[in-house]
Amino acid sequence: MYKMNGEGSLVSRLLKLAQQFNSFYLNGLENGDYRPFIVSGEQVGLISPDVAKALSTYPDVFVVNPSSVSLNPAFRDYNERSQRIEEVLKEWRQRGRFVALKGWRDECYEIKRLFSSEPLLKMDRSATCLFGICKYGVTITGFVKDQKTGGLNVWLQKRSQTKQTWPGKWDNMVAGGLSVGFGVLETAYKEAEEEASIPPHLLRNLVSRGCVSFYYESEKGIFPNTEFVYDLELPPDFIPTNNDGEVETFELLPAKDLIDRLFMPEFKTTSCPVVVDFLIRHGIVNPDSDPQFPLLVELLHVPLQSLYKPRAKGIPFKNGNSQPHNSES
Amino acid sequence: MYKMNGEGSLVSRLLKLAQQFNSFYLNGLENGDYRPFIVSGEQVGLISPDVAKALSTYPDVFVVNPSSVSLNPAFRDYNERSQRIEEVLKEWRQRGRFVALKGWRDECYEIKRLFSSEPLLKMDRSATCLFGICKYGVTITGFVKDQKTGGLNVWLQKRSQTKQTWPGKWDNMVAGGLSVGFGVLETAYKEAEEEASIPPHLLRNLVSRGCVSFYYESEKGIFPNTEFVYDLELPPDFIPTNNDGEVETFELLPAKDLIDRLFMPEFKTTSCPVVVDFLIRHGIVNPDSDPQFPLLVELLHVPLQSLYKPRAKGIPFKNGNSQPHNSES
Repeated sequence: MYKMNGEGSLVSRLLKLAQQFNSFYLNGLENGDYRPFIVSGEQVGLISPDVAKALSTYPDVFVVNPSSVSLNPAFRDYNERSQRIEEVLKEWRQRGRFVALKGWRDECYEIKRLFSSEPLLKMDRSATCLFGICKYGVTITGFVKDQKTGGLNVWLQKRSQTKQTWPGKWDNMVAGGLSVGFGVLETAYKEAEEEASIPPHLLRNLVSRGCVSFYYESEKGIFPNTEFVYDLELPPDFIPTNNDGEVETFELLPAKDLIDRLFMPEFKTTSCPVVVDFLIRHGIVNPDSDPQFPLLVELLHVPLQSLYKPRAKGIPFKNGNSQPHNSES
Repeated sequence: MYKMNGEGSLVSRLLKLAQQFNSFYLNGLENGDYRPFIVSGEQVGLISPDVAKALSTYPDVFVVNPSSVSLNPAFRDYNERSQRIEEVLKEWRQRGRFVALKGWRDECYEIKRLFSSEPLLKMDRSATCLFGICKYGVTITGFVKDQKTGGLNVWLQKRSQTKQTWPGKWDNMVAGGLSVGFGVLETAYKEAEEEASIPPHLLRNLVSRGCVSFYYESEKGIFPNTEFVYDLELPPDFIPTNNDGEVETFELLPAKDLIDRLFMPEFKTTSCPVVVDFLIRHGIVNPDSDPQFPLLVELLHVPLQSLYKPRAKGIPFKNGNSQPHNSES
């Protein structure tokens, strides 16, 4: 018999948080309402019934059938695909068709099947959640060691009230999406300078620590996300200041207060995985505190790279990957 | 089109290693030959056709049908289940029926659905790979920082030639399976003392860093494994010595040589995930070196806690977890 041990423990509370930032992975993915989104013979996303219905009114752009939605395979290349989708999105935006498109960014994101694949097309960042396209970003956790106790203090930022996504919410010190043509570390440097004015000599302490992956759903759409995580130990006398108007304020919190803040509704839900990963990597959250620890770690690393099926040639492994059964062959 | 970018890069070489220690996850799991192993209404493992055939000759102990293998649900409790399985295993062992049982340990392992579940029965450690039972262990990576360059040097052990599993192979400094009644950190302390004679004052530096999960297959059977990982920074003048006869020798390697060693056939395959995780957590392997980095991280955290289906009441999440489709409802 399955037992939800230690309901009130830290790991159990974090597990509830992990269920929130994996709301689509744990709930939507399995119910079978979503259809694979196919571009050039490969699954690159998932389409809700609502979006599929809207797409079916553009039969020259999308092939909508009961088991999948495909971008017209007659489109020749990256440019034609990008342009034809953009026309549809702009029409929707004008007609106020989807709430996600109210946050139109005038900044494109490149669509690939895997992080390692060639880009197939680009679309406005605001629209990717309508197609279940995986996004990649970089987060830097800035921390200061207490010189007496060795305890950790972590810098948070409060997002500006004018930001299009999650305005006024608490967030990690520095974070940003990967842009076309920028490397991962390069993006980290760029964001560290723009968001928190961190000087180059302090960035020498920046260390890559891995990545977290999760699949969130909101009223706007679905968000598969992989975030590359970096730790940056900072000297006690350094205070981050914002450079680009996207941050309202910064605050340094002891680990204990960081955990309290994490559970507040004022914390950006999709920034929680990086904090939880940080708490685990620094031994603050550990397996002895709760037998559900392995499940918590699992929910920081949901298998986004193997969720969408390769359709044609070039399967990454000999006999294919493990796949959820909602994306049919 | 999927592209296997940068074939020769470090991440790509590590990805091949990850395919080796996930040989069952990436190949066996999907082919549908394996049946869920059900105890008291819950899936706790997977059974190969070969083992299913052998179990079908004990119809009073196992209910073998085309879609599952169940331990007789009439067995009342932990003790009756454990005893009835043990009788079968001992008979097989006497008849030399499965190669895995040649490594009979006279040491039992408790079978649970999840790490957080109540134990349902116990069986000899050597037999768990015949039933696809998930095992849990602890690994300590002992390392020394180069005082001039800050570079990392890592302690490895060479396993004794008399060990029942992986004799003479290279392995992490300290590792051991979780035993009934011992906490995770407690196991780490115990093994650190027995295997490497690490004194208590040095163990104060021991830090929990998370866990890795993978699903390996060998000629003996299938091995779902979750390993809790700890880092231990050691002073340059400390040299580990073995206390229990299970280690032939220890060696301190710079990170570069550690990577070379990792790819040698003399390295224990199922100890590689902890080394790869260490290299990632310390920034030695990072996302800029290869676009397949997210896939590599994913293969260090395969979803073992949600692979086996809950069968009855007490599903961990409202609408169930993501499940591979070979374990039918």
